[in-house]
Amino acid sequence: MQPGGIRLTVVWTTRPEGVDVSETRAAQANIGVVGLAVMGSNLARNLASREGNTVAVFNRSYSRTELLTSEHPEAGFIASETIEDFVASLTTPRTAIIMVQAGKGTDAVISQLSALFEPGDIIVDGGNADFQDTIRREKENSAKGLNFVGAGISGGEEGALHGPSIMPGGSVEAYKTLGPILESIAAIIDGVPCVTHIGTDGAGHFVKMIHNGIEYADMQLIAEAYDLLRRVGGHSPAAIADIFAEWNTGELNSYLIEITAEILRQVDPKTDKPFIDIVLDEAGSKGTGVWTVQNSLDLGVPVGGIAEAVFARAVSAHPEQRGPVRATLTARPEIAIVGDTFQEDVRQALYASKIVAYAQGFDAIIAGAVKYGWSIDKGAIATIWRGGCIIRAQFLNRIVDAYNNDPSIPSLLVDKYFADAVATSEAAWRRVVSTAALSGVPVPGFGSSLSYFDSLASERLPAALVQGQRDYFGAHTYKRVDMPGTFHTLWSGDRSEVATEGSSH
Amino acid sequence: MQPGGIRLTVVWTTRPEGVDVSETRAAQANIGVVGLAVMGSNLARNLASREGNTVAVFNRSYSRTELLTSEHPEAGFIASETIEDFVASLTTPRTAIIMVQAGKGTDAVISQLSALFEPGDIIVDGGNADFQDTIRREKENSAKGLNFVGAGISGGEEGALHGPSIMPGGSVEAYKTLGPILESIAAIIDGVPCVTHIGTDGAGHFVKMIHNGIEYADMQLIAEAYDLLRRVGGHSPAAIADIFAEWNTGELNSYLIEITAEILRQVDPKTDKPFIDIVLDEAGSKGTGVWTVQNSLDLGVPVGGIAEAVFARAVSAHPEQRGPVRATLTARPEIAIVGDTFQEDVRQALYASKIVAYAQGFDAIIAGAVKYGWSIDKGAIATIWRGGCIIRAQFLNRIVDAYNNDPSIPSLLVDKYFADAVATSEAAWRRVVSTAALSGVPVPGFGSSLSYFDSLASERLPAALVQGQRDYFGAHTYKRVDMPGTFHTLWSGDRSEVATEGSSH
Repeated sequence: MQPGGIRLTVVWTTRPEGVDVSETRAAQANIGVVGLAVMGSNLARNLASREGNTVAVFNRSYSRTELLTSEHPEAGFIASETIEDFVASLTTPRTAIIMVQAGKGTDAVISQLSALFEPGDIIVDGGNADFQDTIRREKENSAKGLNFVGAGISGGEEGALHGPSIMPGGSVEAYKTLGPILESIAAIIDGVPCVTHIGTDGAGHFVKMIHNGIEYADMQLIAEAYDLLRRVGGHSPAAIADIFAEWNTGELNSYLIEITAEILRQVDPKTDKPFIDIVLDEAGSKGTGVWTVQNSLDLGVPVGGIAEAVFARAVSAHPEQRGPVRATLTARPEIAIVGDTFQEDVRQALYASKIVAYAQGFDAIIAGAVKYGWSIDKGAIATIWRGGCIIRAQFLNRIVDAYNNDPSIPSLLVDKYFADAVATSEAAWRRVVSTAALSGVPVPGFGSSLSYFDSLASERLPAALVQGQRDYFGAHTYKRVDMPGTFHTLWSGDRSEVATEGSSH
Repeated sequence: MQPGGIRLTVVWTTRPEGVDVSETRAAQANIGVVGLAVMGSNLARNLASREGNTVAVFNRSYSRTELLTSEHPEAGFIASETIEDFVASLTTPRTAIIMVQAGKGTDAVISQLSALFEPGDIIVDGGNADFQDTIRREKENSAKGLNFVGAGISGGEEGALHGPSIMPGGSVEAYKTLGPILESIAAIIDGVPCVTHIGTDGAGHFVKMIHNGIEYADMQLIAEAYDLLRRVGGHSPAAIADIFAEWNTGELNSYLIEITAEILRQVDPKTDKPFIDIVLDEAGSKGTGVWTVQNSLDLGVPVGGIAEAVFARAVSAHPEQRGPVRATLTARPEIAIVGDTFQEDVRQALYASKIVAYAQGFDAIIAGAVKYGWSIDKGAIATIWRGGCIIRAQFLNRIVDAYNNDPSIPSLLVDKYFADAVATSEAAWRRVVSTAALSGVPVPGFGSSLSYFDSLASERLPAALVQGQRDYFGAHTYKRVDMPGTFHTLWSGDRSEVATEGSSH
């Protein structure tokens, strides 16, 4: 980092040879964007479209910068060919949002910026970073007096352009400058921008990770509902599109339900077949779903709905197993076409399973906040997910209400609205999982969610047997229901019980 | 490392003051054990009981060493008060098995030994190490010319004493010396010792990790079977003990089924109640189950059966959620007591689900071997799991056969024996999952396994819809079933399809 007084001098001397250095670049942009692929370009255009923002832009290859500025003269971008000019074009406290692919590229840009930025300046990583990397980067940069903000941004390309949901972590001080800028570009729901200060260091990227995990579950549950309506209900894709469109007018109202109807209605222009039938059924993934499950495992939080969604994609992506297993089959279960009530049963099963997915996701957020020392407002997180992001849904208002009513509820399933919703859907949920099992239609998401609910709802769990087994083969000890202490049975001795000092773990 | 000629001199000079150094210790033990807690003590006794072995022992606190040698004079242990004496008591190539708690303790002992050992000597870590640590440790020690072997040892205390299943990784050279020693103490099945050279560096601990993951699944599936027989079948613990004992005479024959019968038959001496009813139903865990799932996620291998087992323990361990959720319930499903066939249905569901758990576990081993460059003999792994370890089972002979018949099968479910077994059990499996869903009995393991099978067995998966959604909101592109290439639909444009150069991931 250089002292303020000689900043421009340093900029000039480090400029590559052959570049025109005759003009003095005035600091005039209140915000900058580094990385102008589609997400970065759209975010920069969104920023530029809001009153009061002047946006500096920089990309490693200048041609992309030129393309953006020439295609969007209305944005009034301040373009720079070098990172030094880019930094010089920013007013203080300098604020730059990095929109490059997560990983080493991010570290390279951070190191360029942190060499030129001054204390109090703000570096924002808007990519899908691993929150552990964000914790590390925040520590490195704050040691230099810089503010580092890891901000999860959801909503895809369209969201970036028209209004995403933004989950910034970092210091309260940084949010004072950055907050109003982010609020100017975020989606607005009921007058409230879909951005809030999530917590310190990695909190924003952690919450974005869980958002994506819930997104995996949500998509899988919708896929299972479609599959059941198709294979058991016997409906055509177009008819199922109508069903989803109808569902979108009720408590399931959400972006993912809406686009599912659109996708199912789509006809492939090349073949005139339903679009859904020409798409190869091998799903890809990009990592945040896996991270959600891995971190939840570390936190001891059961997230079966999310894990089964990740695994469902993985199974689909193994055609070298699917084909040979199918080749061994001699018979498949008869698919029973069931009556009119099945459609409503599926809707209720989808709703109940979705509630479980969110309950599990919020449990992971709460456990993460405890482990990493973040002060997190659960209602505020639900609030900013109501718009802009992929999992935006009317339903999130109910989560906001639940946490506003009682921020200390131990599970969303305990909130009266959700408890009632599950109770209302419960019988249908059971019928659907039962029918799927008998019909040979895989429902890893519906089934796992129902078993999770039934585990919480059971007076006694067979975990007692597991503890007995662990004590038998490994002397892992157990606790009793009727007295304090830790015990071990002398299984290979006289089978009497001894009190131990060990833990039951 | 010190040059051989002055080794004893160095030993003496680094000895703590006040220790008697007058005697010269003769190298006479062909194997040593460091760490004399119950696993280490039992392993040392096992080693000492075999013809041809002389066993050196060392423990950080000497009192434990004295206890072991005084309680077991028949073992003829060579006891040392210092690590230097311990090393001096070993014949070359020196071979020492470390049996201390995994983690930093292991690194400390390795560093003590590696400072005293000479090129060609062998350090064995017999703890439950993370295989990534083993890869690192092998690299560090082989750079010094030492052999480092990470050996998974399964079978608990009893196995360590009477014959465990041992999964050593490391160099072929090290196995030449170590193999015969391990073969002398391992369990023997059909004349074959339950130990084989698994592969280089971390291969042994990786396979042990997966073994434990399968163990989690196996235990959970048995727990679900018990729960169904109790809550749906209406049987008493003693009656279920009889059922498990009967099952143990057939294709389910295994150690875990055997001890389950014993546990269910046990009556609590304090209350005269069934033991299973006085054990607190909150299951603990020690990490390897979590590791199995986390690593399988990294490898893209679906291991839902194992993951649901880990999550089932986690749910049970959250009483602060279970109580409040139960308090919201107004009604529970009527538990239907079903007829005589239910018991056999549960047995078949258990067998089919168990096959899935093993298929998933072996998939993870195969994927790990590819990623980490291990040449692994799947049949040999199934062979050494037939005895000594917690998951020992008759069933493993069928896995040995499957891989001997065709080592390249893409899934155990493709092998004729297992395909037939699943086909035979399939209808019962479906009835059990269906009944459980309707009855409110959680079956995360049975349900996940059935959905996994149904996913592999389905002609088309709704992963196609997931790909459609990903293309809609994130332009992630998709492949088609009818032509090569990668495509994107202009969802917010005219909905025509464009070929892209992107990947579908």
